[in-house]
Amino acid sequence: MTSIYQRAAFVGLGLIAGSMALAMRRGGLVAETTGTARSPETRTIAAEIGLVDRVTDTAAEAVQGADLVVLCVPMGAMDAVAAEIAPHLAHGATVTDVGSVKQAVIDAVGPHLPDHTHFIPGHPLAGTEHSGPRAGFAELFDNRWTILTPPEGTDPQALDRLTRLWQGMGAQVDIMDPPHHDLVLAVTSHTPHLIAYTMVGVADDLRRVTDSEVIKYSAAGFRDFTRIAASDPTMWRDVFLTNKDATLEILGRFTEELFALQRAIRRGDGDHLHDYFTRTRAIRRGIIDAGQDTDAPDFGRGKR
Amino acid sequence: MTSIYQRAAFVGLGLIAGSMALAMRRGGLVAETTGTARSPETRTIAAEIGLVDRVTDTAAEAVQGADLVVLCVPMGAMDAVAAEIAPHLAHGATVTDVGSVKQAVIDAVGPHLPDHTHFIPGHPLAGTEHSGPRAGFAELFDNRWTILTPPEGTDPQALDRLTRLWQGMGAQVDIMDPPHHDLVLAVTSHTPHLIAYTMVGVADDLRRVTDSEVIKYSAAGFRDFTRIAASDPTMWRDVFLTNKDATLEILGRFTEELFALQRAIRRGDGDHLHDYFTRTRAIRRGIIDAGQDTDAPDFGRGKR
Repeated sequence: MTSIYQRAAFVGLGLIAGSMALAMRRGGLVAETTGTARSPETRTIAAEIGLVDRVTDTAAEAVQGADLVVLCVPMGAMDAVAAEIAPHLAHGATVTDVGSVKQAVIDAVGPHLPDHTHFIPGHPLAGTEHSGPRAGFAELFDNRWTILTPPEGTDPQALDRLTRLWQGMGAQVDIMDPPHHDLVLAVTSHTPHLIAYTMVGVADDLRRVTDSEVIKYSAAGFRDFTRIAASDPTMWRDVFLTNKDATLEILGRFTEELFALQRAIRRGDGDHLHDYFTRTRAIRRGIIDAGQDTDAPDFGRGKR
Repeated sequence: MTSIYQRAAFVGLGLIAGSMALAMRRGGLVAETTGTARSPETRTIAAEIGLVDRVTDTAAEAVQGADLVVLCVPMGAMDAVAAEIAPHLAHGATVTDVGSVKQAVIDAVGPHLPDHTHFIPGHPLAGTEHSGPRAGFAELFDNRWTILTPPEGTDPQALDRLTRLWQGMGAQVDIMDPPHHDLVLAVTSHTPHLIAYTMVGVADDLRRVTDSEVIKYSAAGFRDFTRIAASDPTMWRDVFLTNKDATLEILGRFTEELFALQRAIRRGDGDHLHDYFTRTRAIRRGIIDAGQDTDAPDFGRGKR
């Protein structure tokens, strides 16, 4: 199989970049990979484990001669990274990213890029609670969705090439406009993460119920929340700062519903509770039928 | 090994009863098991798959001659079941339960039981999102905690015997007073479940973000919530109706914290968010170190 790109350059070498590099290698999709990271420690580890073919000290070096550049830094660093690499981008290069919020990336990166490049923002809906250069694995994107948000007038060939790359890495690809992406993700990812962080924070705060008890007895539900509340703090700070409006809107809906359930508890309205809890069961079935989660009890975690 | 009990009778044959019966068999802990359920369908399935040695039509029949009786019905049914079985309990029998709220069980069951029996309420902190007679498995309690809340003056031998049974089923056993149990569980289980139900309900409500999108893109966090929001609706209705005060208290704390984070988002206070998200990471580490969850990314779910 012919490579889809000749040289892919990663700026940032965390979970997503590492998984992409490994998935590219698995599929023989890219002839050469280069990469860099701000932290010398990350660069050293990436070089040691051979995450990419060549680790460079700077982003400018990494992107030179690359026909694909993937920005894998937190949202807050996108602006500065785009400014740094812009003068070094090859003619006709495609620049993409993996940020969790799309309108903010477009605003931060778009203005810096020269006209001779193709800017196609992207977001793979995949991840784990682990982060850093050792966290990646080639299968991360298998059967997961990647959403691309190409601006109007994007070159169809460039879009097709990036789509084939993602499909080669195991993903299914959807096209969306940026504000809709940001709203969908506020529902399916950003608000759930904020709520999980909050619940874990509350438990941590309660000194009457000591840490040790919260930890010992976590198997009754709480531990599911701690997984997503263990995700990378910098990334999530930036998500909430850059997808402010959609997150606040969904949070408002959430609080409204929570107050209605709280009122039902206070009044002893068992029918309201039972109806609500029955309705939510169906959505789980939909997710399992769509192949987006396992039906194994407890996710099949542990030894079973 | 000598059996710890001669005959264990289950009233209710769902996930927990089934898992206990199978764990008893695995460990050779009980010479004979009997059981009943309100629904004829459940009784038929239980008999077909041999969940217990003998399925009876009524609770009165099931408990006759049993030296251990385990009440595995939703909280709302405890009162009626206790009244029904009381005249048929063998002299010296131990009566226990597996309800998620302990003070309410004590209030509902205690007054019915004759003095010649030992009443030792219990709660295994284990479960899955599946329910019904086919959901049980012998390993459910392995390395999980079971909390017993014996009333003052409980016979030490009866307590020791029930403790050994739970240990034989793989569990670790803790003793607690009922109000403390109910508060700890409000933090580690009841409030997290209510929040998960709420988040899933919100997603289900949002018609702009269609069902299909919520399901397709659930891997970005939302699907973790849907697991615990798929638990048995009747059981959870009863939990919130019977652990009202502790749940409302923890919900109040939760809302307070959530509003503080919401305010930080609105004001763009990145430091507040980053500090909060960093703190919650540590608690996940504690849970993994305590053997109460797996460190495998994404719980090791799916094919990896």
